Amino acid sequence: MIGAGPAGLTAAIYAERSGLKTVVLEKAMIGGQVSLTPVVENWPGVKSVPGARLMEMMAEQARQYTDIHENEQVEEIKIGKKIDIITRQRTYEARAVIVAMGADHLKLGVAGEDRFSGRGVSYCATCDGFLYKDWSVIVIGGGNSALTEALYLASVGAHVGLVHRREELRAEKRLQDMFSTTGSTLIQNTAVEEVMGTDRVTAIRLKDLKTGDIRTLPVDAVFVAIGEQPNSGLAKQIGVLVDEKNYIKVDRNMRTNIPRIYAAGDITGGVRQIVTAVGAGAVAAVSAFEDLGDPYWKKTA
Amino acid sequence: MIGAGPAGLTAAIYAERSGLKTVVLEKAMIGGQVSLTPVVENWPGVKSVPGARLMEMMAEQARQYTDIHENEQVEEIKIGKKIDIITRQRTYEARAVIVAMGADHLKLGVAGEDRFSGRGVSYCATCDGFLYKDWSVIVIGGGNSALTEALYLASVGAHVGLVHRREELRAEKRLQDMFSTTGSTLIQNTAVEEVMGTDRVTAIRLKDLKTGDIRTLPVDAVFVAIGEQPNSGLAKQIGVLVDEKNYIKVDRNMRTNIPRIYAAGDITGGVRQIVTAVGAGAVAAVSAFEDLGDPYWKKTA
Repeated sequence: MIGAGPAGLTAAIYAERSGLKTVVLEKAMIGGQVSLTPVVENWPGVKSVPGARLMEMMAEQARQYTDIHENEQVEEIKIGKKIDIITRQRTYEARAVIVAMGADHLKLGVAGEDRFSGRGVSYCATCDGFLYKDWSVIVIGGGNSALTEALYLASVGAHVGLVHRREELRAEKRLQDMFSTTGSTLIQNTAVEEVMGTDRVTAIRLKDLKTGDIRTLPVDAVFVAIGEQPNSGLAKQIGVLVDEKNYIKVDRNMRTNIPRIYAAGDITGGVRQIVTAVGAGAVAAVSAFEDLGDPYWKKTA
Repeated sequence: MIGAGPAGLTAAIYAERSGLKTVVLEKAMIGGQVSLTPVVENWPGVKSVPGARLMEMMAEQARQYTDIHENEQVEEIKIGKKIDIITRQRTYEARAVIVAMGADHLKLGVAGEDRFSGRGVSYCATCDGFLYKDWSVIVIGGGNSALTEALYLASVGAHVGLVHRREELRAEKRLQDMFSTTGSTLIQNTAVEEVMGTDRVTAIRLKDLKTGDIRTLPVDAVFVAIGEQPNSGLAKQIGVLVDEKNYIKVDRNMRTNIPRIYAAGDITGGVRQIVTAVGAGAVAAVSAFEDLGDPYWKKTA
């Protein structure tokens, strides 16, 4: 397993329980993006839990079955009869690999963004939007994701402003039509200069790109939806197919186009929730178990 | 949502959090098949928990968002502009329905089966197999599922006997080949007469269907794998497509062939785990949210 987020950890639990021997390699710390989330409220069975705590619970359980190597970045994968996984520290020989390295949200790169991340700055309306009923929120972006986030937030009862750098939205017409029925505000030709606040976000500083005017808008939250970068580079090197947004293509059983390489979690796109990642991790592990059980493989191994 | 198992409850949490109004209708009690499982060890974040307790945790959380009506069986679904959900108690008008009524394992129907269910009698090796390393287990059945269960159990280190009523296994050749490499025992032309035990399973009584001989075999567990019946009857009545085993056909987004009808969980087949059910429930809810947001729908509603 490469990646110790919900998908990788669940894959390890399932794979070990089926009799396979696994190790989880993680370039940084366990938890993936969930660890950066202050409060998770949509993990079934736990009303409210800090993301880092939830991931520590999952890791504790996974450690009953597998080893988790943090701070061990995979530098290369080599596919032959066996699969070599080369990290800075050593080389592992594997019969199958589940890639679950997740995706990184693109950042605005403006002052205050990192400081207020998790305290009003969010990258996921499905995760955090529920908190903002009757509050004022700004969504940044102009593509399908940004419009979907804006619609979600309007639907939970937030007052939504959509800030976009250009005149025209890139999002498909249907989403734009829906957006126009919500009573939300569209702020075009505008860039974000700074996210402002004290303990948490209180305002956003905007620049009109046509006039150059600067204004400060009081807001309770900022949802950044300018895109995501799946960590699929390593997989692409060995020929794993990705879609136009660099998400790894998988079939229903989480198999990629390369035999014995599976993918699960945010790296495959989709709705990108903890509940979907764990499901995909389990499915990937079951597929690996089924494929490795093949007697031909056992004979040649 | 119809069905208050992991899929239905998670769908309700996600749908309500997105601003949709939901109710969960359950013919019996919350929890689905999980509630019958004595110990769940593969739910990430909880090392070991009784199935009924885990489902109570999920239900508690879901009740923060939605109403769960237990003992309210749906008798009919009628699709028009809106969707009528008719139960014995009343009729609900809905804009969308997520069917998550699960599946029932077929039972042997022999003495001791119910009594020792969860105490040695199991219907799911992926769930319970891990407990039986170095123990003696019997798998009953001759199809792909039975062989897969047997292979899984052999893989975790159990001593496996496969009991089948007929001479020939129905399972595909590849699985039979794999089975023959595991050192497991095949017991053909044999029927189960009784599952025996004290506190839990200690033996199984078998009848040779050719000779009529009865013998008692000491075993630690019995895995029944003679098939499963998805609860898809109601959905089929309104034209929802199912596969050859009566599992509901869904696309990647859990949409069925009928607009505004979604399906999630065991009723759609697959690996049938709690982690996959919750993921599917969330995806179904997100799809419903996306579809219902369509302005055309809003206008005509």
